[in-house]
Amino acid sequence: MQTDDGQPYDSELMAAVTELGTALRGLVDASVRTTVPAGDLRATATAVRELTGRLAAAQRPVTQLPALDDPVVFRRVYNPVSGVGSALAPPVRFRRTDGGVLGRATLGPAFEGPPGYVHGGVSALLADQLLGSAAIAAGLWGMTARLELEYRRPVPLDTPLVLRAAVTAASGRRVDLGGSIAAEAAPDEPLVAARGVFVMPRADRHADYFGAITDARGRHAPPRRPTDATGVPGDGE
Amino acid sequence: MQTDDGQPYDSELMAAVTELGTALRGLVDASVRTTVPAGDLRATATAVRELTGRLAAAQRPVTQLPALDDPVVFRRVYNPVSGVGSALAPPVRFRRTDGGVLGRATLGPAFEGPPGYVHGGVSALLADQLLGSAAIAAGLWGMTARLELEYRRPVPLDTPLVLRAAVTAASGRRVDLGGSIAAEAAPDEPLVAARGVFVMPRADRHADYFGAITDARGRHAPPRRPTDATGVPGDGE
Repeated sequence: MQTDDGQPYDSELMAAVTELGTALRGLVDASVRTTVPAGDLRATATAVRELTGRLAAAQRPVTQLPALDDPVVFRRVYNPVSGVGSALAPPVRFRRTDGGVLGRATLGPAFEGPPGYVHGGVSALLADQLLGSAAIAAGLWGMTARLELEYRRPVPLDTPLVLRAAVTAASGRRVDLGGSIAAEAAPDEPLVAARGVFVMPRADRHADYFGAITDARGRHAPPRRPTDATGVPGDGE
Repeated sequence: MQTDDGQPYDSELMAAVTELGTALRGLVDASVRTTVPAGDLRATATAVRELTGRLAAAQRPVTQLPALDDPVVFRRVYNPVSGVGSALAPPVRFRRTDGGVLGRATLGPAFEGPPGYVHGGVSALLADQLLGSAAIAAGLWGMTARLELEYRRPVPLDTPLVLRAAVTAASGRRVDLGGSIAAEAAPDEPLVAARGVFVMPRADRHADYFGAITDARGRHAPPRRPTDATGVPGDGE
């Protein structure tokens, strides 16, 4: 059992989920770069369906969080941007910095929009998680209420990127954030600039939205503001 | 060989790419729902790496479009929102309607943000592709310059969604668009409202951005505005 200030978790299971996530990200990448013949693609599809059957042998309901998740510290192993177990995630690893968060990612052709560049919507996907992580790192939490993106230059594929964000204002249930995506080689020249407003739902809506959510042991486990900034590891952790 | 008004393509290869994409989307979904033990996850990871090796036996460079792609009709089989071969895509299928485009999608827990709901960034990802498809359907094309999203209500997982967008203004290289994501059961109550500005790059920048891009036969193949709206199938096609 290990802990990151949240509920202890099964470190063997975490290693296995991370290993499968990494393997799946490799398969997704290979699937868009490959030029093998149709017959090989079909044989691979058959093998993939067999693996799907193995994993589907035991499944959680959607309202039950994965065993490794802890909503209090925002440990979400299948998060589609940052989850170690997600086949969709680049994944981006966010760290707390002085006054905000910093993340790094390199995106391959599975994330392509215009030829050679990251899909504009993928930049938006990253930006939303980036701003949300900065809220959590500041001890706040909210659901996206507004997101505004200014695309200054195309974001190149297969290029190390740096993502930065910080809280710009916070009042009551609302938090305002700003952030950017830049090439690691030119971190102060944003390719995409983002602003967002995140809002913690009112108590009655919160109960409506998350009333059915449980952790893997069946206990009610809605998301909520952390008591401190334990959701994003600090520098050096 | 088949055609969709663009270059003819290899229909056997298209069927195989679609079959593998569908199989991969199933595996991704199973990977986030599964509760099989760590040992089974590790065995699956080993099998996944073996399949990756098979696909990596022959690969295209990133600057070379996939054999099935045709940038003139915006046939992009690995597009991360709408590509039939993409493991990341929901996928959304867009169709031309009177004055715009309409898409349908149902998103499983691989796309989860807050428990039980679609990640705010995933809604942004869908919205960007939605607006871009509406530009293409109108015979226009541009790269995302601005994207603004207003999140009115959370977007539920495992629920049929309807996405609609249309051009609101067009002038020179710029096109303005508006769109929405709603539950199919309440299509006129947007959960997310989107506005965007897409801009066709100036000729000199266009050459900078896409000078190296070729099709699978090695011919220069930059994206450009279609001469007519062949990029998105019409109703009934």
